[in-house]
Amino acid sequence: MASAEPSRKAGYGRHVSEPPAALGGGGRPRLGPRLEGALRAAVGEGHLLTDPDLTASYERDWTGRYGGPAAAVVRPGTTDEVAAVLRVLSAESVAVVPQGGNTGLVGGGVPRAGEVVLSLRRLRGDVHVDPEDRLLEAGAGTTLAEAQQAAREVGLEVGLDLAARDAATLGGMVATNAGGVRVVRHGPLRRRLAGLEAVLADGTVVDRRGGLLKDNVGYDLPGLFAGSEGTLAVVTRVLLRLEPLPASRVAAFVALRAPEALGTPGAGRATATALQVGREILRLGGIEVLEVVYPPGVRLVCEHAGLPAPPDPGADAWLLVEATGDDEVTTARLGALLDAHPLVSATAVALDAPGRAALFAYRERHTEAIARLGVAHKLDVAVPLSRLARLAAEVVDAVAARWPDAATVLFGHLGDGNLHVNVVGPPPDDDEVDALVLGIVLAHGGSVSAEHGVGVARLPFVSRARHPGDLAAMRAVKRALDPRGVLNPGVLIPAG
Amino acid sequence: MASAEPSRKAGYGRHVSEPPAALGGGGRPRLGPRLEGALRAAVGEGHLLTDPDLTASYERDWTGRYGGPAAAVVRPGTTDEVAAVLRVLSAESVAVVPQGGNTGLVGGGVPRAGEVVLSLRRLRGDVHVDPEDRLLEAGAGTTLAEAQQAAREVGLEVGLDLAARDAATLGGMVATNAGGVRVVRHGPLRRRLAGLEAVLADGTVVDRRGGLLKDNVGYDLPGLFAGSEGTLAVVTRVLLRLEPLPASRVAAFVALRAPEALGTPGAGRATATALQVGREILRLGGIEVLEVVYPPGVRLVCEHAGLPAPPDPGADAWLLVEATGDDEVTTARLGALLDAHPLVSATAVALDAPGRAALFAYRERHTEAIARLGVAHKLDVAVPLSRLARLAAEVVDAVAARWPDAATVLFGHLGDGNLHVNVVGPPPDDDEVDALVLGIVLAHGGSVSAEHGVGVARLPFVSRARHPGDLAAMRAVKRALDPRGVLNPGVLIPAG
Repeated sequence: MASAEPSRKAGYGRHVSEPPAALGGGGRPRLGPRLEGALRAAVGEGHLLTDPDLTASYERDWTGRYGGPAAAVVRPGTTDEVAAVLRVLSAESVAVVPQGGNTGLVGGGVPRAGEVVLSLRRLRGDVHVDPEDRLLEAGAGTTLAEAQQAAREVGLEVGLDLAARDAATLGGMVATNAGGVRVVRHGPLRRRLAGLEAVLADGTVVDRRGGLLKDNVGYDLPGLFAGSEGTLAVVTRVLLRLEPLPASRVAAFVALRAPEALGTPGAGRATATALQVGREILRLGGIEVLEVVYPPGVRLVCEHAGLPAPPDPGADAWLLVEATGDDEVTTARLGALLDAHPLVSATAVALDAPGRAALFAYRERHTEAIARLGVAHKLDVAVPLSRLARLAAEVVDAVAARWPDAATVLFGHLGDGNLHVNVVGPPPDDDEVDALVLGIVLAHGGSVSAEHGVGVARLPFVSRARHPGDLAAMRAVKRALDPRGVLNPGVLIPAG
Repeated sequence: MASAEPSRKAGYGRHVSEPPAALGGGGRPRLGPRLEGALRAAVGEGHLLTDPDLTASYERDWTGRYGGPAAAVVRPGTTDEVAAVLRVLSAESVAVVPQGGNTGLVGGGVPRAGEVVLSLRRLRGDVHVDPEDRLLEAGAGTTLAEAQQAAREVGLEVGLDLAARDAATLGGMVATNAGGVRVVRHGPLRRRLAGLEAVLADGTVVDRRGGLLKDNVGYDLPGLFAGSEGTLAVVTRVLLRLEPLPASRVAAFVALRAPEALGTPGAGRATATALQVGREILRLGGIEVLEVVYPPGVRLVCEHAGLPAPPDPGADAWLLVEATGDDEVTTARLGALLDAHPLVSATAVALDAPGRAALFAYRERHTEAIARLGVAHKLDVAVPLSRLARLAAEVVDAVAARWPDAATVLFGHLGDGNLHVNVVGPPPDDDEVDALVLGIVLAHGGSVSAEHGVGVARLPFVSRARHPGDLAAMRAVKRALDPRGVLNPGVLIPAG
């Protein structure tokens, strides 16, 4: 069976490990008849998958970059079944990888070396919305899109959105403290979380579903489990705080011309310009989205995704803005600001849903357009806003100096100081790209994973990103809640 | 020396324990010359206090309700000194009570039975404000008022305010996840927290001072320490996120007449009315304060604090509202809403600071006016907004039925579903008041401590407020970070 100890040899990136010898030969790890029987008894005959044809889709992430063999996939349908599964596996120190919609980008939700995958997808059932207290409660396998739909039906919204909304599950979003384009207004998932139910490694159910706006009784376990990447508990139910649906929304795609005063041409000067205009926009209030894109990415989406030319095709950067309000005050103010601004060269505005979607496409289709170029090194970094322009300049220059033919495409969440850095050209296995970019980020006091999490992909950088005492405290919490180390070993916490 | 085990016999409320026998006789616990010498070496000669004249102010809370003898008071001036003190005490399993400004209301920051008090007040020095990244960093002994002043000097604000602002320290506010009147807009301290430095029981320093808007690398230790009441770590430095100072503020004190349709006269109908109007006010946006007060409290503040008659002295309830905005839009909207509202019988509005203070006095002077009546049972409860009116009615009726001569004064944070319940009349030692009120709260799925924390005062209710698995997880985290149980034993975590 799989070792409970995080292995230093666990495969990161594309280097998928061999199944450990203890798992037996024949190329595939198996649990053995006794354990398989116990799991079948826990979840029902049809929900323990061991046939490679059935387990394959659970064993590799959607980018194809991370994954490995699973000893089995188990699909519990209730909290009690999750607890029963964990009791069985914990007693035998079998490693478990909790998996939601398998939309992660850092290999934190796929097996590495013969673990059991515990899929959340059957933890569903009705989505319950309480309009008066503005709460939503749903099983952890509910998708974001389903939660959004249930909220909208009573005039409320989740306040959180992701491109992966149709597959990403609420449980996975809690486990990764998911972000997205609306964080600038509503915060990441941890701030939307009103409570949860989760199961510890030993099968103990933690029920913290009060949903109160204020409750200073005890440790913030929901906040601790949020972002813990399945290493502390398996989330089974999720309570989210809802927001009123705004009566109106306006989207703007704003072309910027960077003034010479802000430095040499390029990503740094463009970012400095975007920040200057972005700050003025945020001051208007009611801003839900404030994203930035640059010429290399906009050229790509126009070429590969067939979008029409953007406003001012010669701009140095563009902002994607969404403002909401219960009347036209915000819209009028935004228009007045943009019309008169000396750094704004052109603006496209949309008030209706199809028009807004057309503007959002310039941002949202970046991922797809970049994929046309080749397999990208994808980094998700944040620095203080005061450092963002320098970071952008230094990353682009450093990559160009090392790999003159590489394409570096930046885009991201300007208001959060969070850029997605995509580098296409160097071989996908070349770890030097990550080391180069993240080294610059760390030198600026930044985060090596602003929203995607650590998973296995960023594990080698955690010891540089966190201080020794901080790591010691994290390890102590991990050992306390999962003493046998069965929950997602090899993820988030570096071997100590 | 003090036992590291939380004692079932620890004194709660006014029942201060005897010093444990192990501390030696003579009425006062002492550490002995070896330990005292080690602590003096850690913090310097003048900062270990054992003279009862000097320790007295650290040994009892400001209400006079909670406290007990300290074996010593130690006042470290740096993080390294805090670490040295904790190493000394931890090695000998001596219990420590961290103490900030000693403004708590639940006995969580004062000794019970011969612990060492670790005062944060010398952890000060410059308050550093970064206007561009909107961050404040300061020592844990910095008062809220000092932090507010430093932020205002660069056109920013902390977004959090408390009546105890001149004494409450940032470290204590982190430890208690402090709330106050602006939570409805900016959240409690946990949401304002951008990072911290803290020292674990064994002297390990946890440095998590990145201050980034997004950083999904590891467990949310700052959020875990926030609200942990000194049981997991001693906070030494605090980073807060700042908000822009609004260009204008308007305060309104709004008299409400409760319609018959909302039930029988009294606190329930008044609360239902306040909620109905309050929801419409919140929908305007830009609302920083939304408090409710009732006739018994308003009569008291007029009689005892010398305030002039409120708008519509015969009203059923009043709302205290503060709206901010960078122009007059919010003010105009608020005025339009209140002028036309059928449930609003009169409104006083103030735009300048003295005028706003005069309106805030109707709310802020409640505590002082209630104290004139006698020693109050003070409860701090929250329920879902949908239950708040029923809670108010049931609490007032239940107290009146049991103690016909008691005065029940409610006031609080309407927007958060958080009422402060004050009962004057039954003897201060009578635990039945707390049991009666909190029993009603628990029956409505509410919190037995919305913002004041558990301390020792609410400890007997934690096992009913939290599920067994939740308690088990909290105990595991506590044991992991403080295996000898030296940090604030007897607070927050019930003996298991």
